[in-house]
Amino acid sequence: MNYKFSKRIENLKPSAIREIFKYAADPEVVSLSAGNPSPDAFAAKEIGEICANIFKEKPIEALQYSVTEGYAPLRSYMLDYMKKKHGIGRDFDDILMTSGAQQIMELTTKALCDEGDVIICEEPSFIGSLNSFRSIGAKLLGVELEPDGMSIEKLEDALKNTKNVKFIYTIPNFQNPSGVTTSLEKRKAMYELARKYDIMIIEDNPYGDLRYEGEDVKNIKSFDEDGRVIYSGTFSKVIAPGLRVGYTVAPSAVLKKMIVAKQGEDVHTTILSQMICYEFLTKYDFDANLDMLRSLYRKKARFCMDLLDKYVVPTGITYQPIQGGLFIWCRLPEGTDMPDFCTKAVKEHKVAVVPGTAFLSDENGTSDYFRINFTTPSDEKLEEGIIRLGKFAAEYLK
Amino acid sequence: MNYKFSKRIENLKPSAIREIFKYAADPEVVSLSAGNPSPDAFAAKEIGEICANIFKEKPIEALQYSVTEGYAPLRSYMLDYMKKKHGIGRDFDDILMTSGAQQIMELTTKALCDEGDVIICEEPSFIGSLNSFRSIGAKLLGVELEPDGMSIEKLEDALKNTKNVKFIYTIPNFQNPSGVTTSLEKRKAMYELARKYDIMIIEDNPYGDLRYEGEDVKNIKSFDEDGRVIYSGTFSKVIAPGLRVGYTVAPSAVLKKMIVAKQGEDVHTTILSQMICYEFLTKYDFDANLDMLRSLYRKKARFCMDLLDKYVVPTGITYQPIQGGLFIWCRLPEGTDMPDFCTKAVKEHKVAVVPGTAFLSDENGTSDYFRINFTTPSDEKLEEGIIRLGKFAAEYLK
Repeated sequence: MNYKFSKRIENLKPSAIREIFKYAADPEVVSLSAGNPSPDAFAAKEIGEICANIFKEKPIEALQYSVTEGYAPLRSYMLDYMKKKHGIGRDFDDILMTSGAQQIMELTTKALCDEGDVIICEEPSFIGSLNSFRSIGAKLLGVELEPDGMSIEKLEDALKNTKNVKFIYTIPNFQNPSGVTTSLEKRKAMYELARKYDIMIIEDNPYGDLRYEGEDVKNIKSFDEDGRVIYSGTFSKVIAPGLRVGYTVAPSAVLKKMIVAKQGEDVHTTILSQMICYEFLTKYDFDANLDMLRSLYRKKARFCMDLLDKYVVPTGITYQPIQGGLFIWCRLPEGTDMPDFCTKAVKEHKVAVVPGTAFLSDENGTSDYFRINFTTPSDEKLEEGIIRLGKFAAEYLK
Repeated sequence: MNYKFSKRIENLKPSAIREIFKYAADPEVVSLSAGNPSPDAFAAKEIGEICANIFKEKPIEALQYSVTEGYAPLRSYMLDYMKKKHGIGRDFDDILMTSGAQQIMELTTKALCDEGDVIICEEPSFIGSLNSFRSIGAKLLGVELEPDGMSIEKLEDALKNTKNVKFIYTIPNFQNPSGVTTSLEKRKAMYELARKYDIMIIEDNPYGDLRYEGEDVKNIKSFDEDGRVIYSGTFSKVIAPGLRVGYTVAPSAVLKKMIVAKQGEDVHTTILSQMICYEFLTKYDFDANLDMLRSLYRKKARFCMDLLDKYVVPTGITYQPIQGGLFIWCRLPEGTDMPDFCTKAVKEHKVAVVPGTAFLSDENGTSDYFRINFTTPSDEKLEEGIIRLGKFAAEYLK
């Protein structure tokens, strides 16, 4: 038969990034295009022990249907943890456990946006979230991301001149793909603008715990007096992404709607995964695990930046040194045909990076950037990949 | 702040059923309102062993990000299994692993329906699916369910007179809530009508393996020559619902769109859950487990029907005996105030049943029915619940 798809899905093209991933599946390709935690980052032994205990002590609870809101002990532990550690969560807030942070993007959009409503995002921003917004039929409006966060001037322009903006989407710490951390001043300015134009903010914070240099900056949610910030957290980068457990601290009134939407989506998040996270947080040394992760990634990030300085920067490619997160955002000399560069890198030189256009609110836009990830490959692979990249760039940019 | 929600979510009211569930949380209430497998139905020991093995042999695979399509060994095993066991799956079909079958409803609607498009469903039908359809902004059109399936005459009327119908939603085996199994003739007639009006069908089959009397009827998907049937399966009733693993065998062209939507929803289904299902299917005796489930539920269903015959039928309430599934659909004498009956049953007599209106395409419609579940409570609780129900009904219907 002749299939007819919905408009919102018809418009969701898997684009350039998919092409790259197709080539990246070739075992000879060194992939710097992923966003996975390092295989060394998993407390696999501990999680195995936890599973064994769960099946000894609470097997039926781990296997039976559960409530949409999430595993009650984990919810109450995390509410308390976020309050104590980050000053996040007031009387009007509550917590919902989700199937990864990705689901928070989707549920928020479903709850707040009618077809054609506008979401303001950083330009560039995380493709997964952008596609999530698009899949509900929301329109994206990108605001330039500067080295200390979104341009506040351009944000206000956008808010002044655009109808039906429902929320601002921001990744304030070690942004994906740019690595940028938004300054405290800009976080406050962003909140004040949200207040002035009476819209909400999604603060997406998957990488906040992965700061390996410098000082933490307060989360926007910590100064949310009005209940206009939806904080998005996840265990993907600090326990394990395969478990698919995220959490959102947000105004109860909004969560109620997200819960109804989640019922229709997956009923509840895998209960065994939630129990594993709870046991790991409460019976093991979670802080020591964070320290281990930070020192692992600090080492890998420095190693990667040293390699870039040695092999890639001399070709004319630049990058902003990073203080946390999983990504480095590299810039080609102005006027380079970036998509052609990325395609040839993977096809002819067997090194995969992600073209910057994948992260734009308008996929037909242009970009001089590409993103590399240094956490997934082993040190040997990383070195080989960056040497290949440098060699190819030297030739291509000559 | 003053929250403004999307129209589709604003219209999704949690209604009467939630009120009942609130009371059902009272530990003194006997709940016949759930839809959970019996705690005796879980192969908890085996699943514990499987987990231990996974963490011994493939811990990183169980914890790392995976692909949206699903765990490859499970996908290929299930494609083969469905083909051999049910004659389901042709060259144009493929399989997608989902976060429960609930997600199949949501993804299909997202892929096929624009706001305001129409989905035809049996009247009554499963509230979870109906809310899933509503959450994407689809309109529901209920077609009367007769004792052998949807009225084919009324289905054709609906198709003839309604614009923008995108698909028919049917639960052909032991329908939730009615227990009805659609006859082979009606399955064929439904498929022919879908062909004539060039629309698709979602065949939702969570209970097909739970037939404990009578003969299996062929699935609609088995005679799908055109690629217009989306078959929805789940391990929730035959392994464990807490794992949240469903699967859909559907035309590849449609699955491609559902995969893009799923990426934006939860990236992929919990990989540990998928690995558990795969190991259980391939290393344990899955058929023997199905036999165990059938004999467990056969016994419980008979026990429940005997109790109904003894305590409830004499009050004027009737029901259709069932041959499979988890639910019995009870009818009050015409003219009874059904919502009042259900509310008083739980508030004053501590026995919870689900009011029939919860399962209507139009929640403001009326119904003489209520649904009871016999798999979740222990035999003792079930007996107590039905005695309470009978006692209350005798008094209320006097």
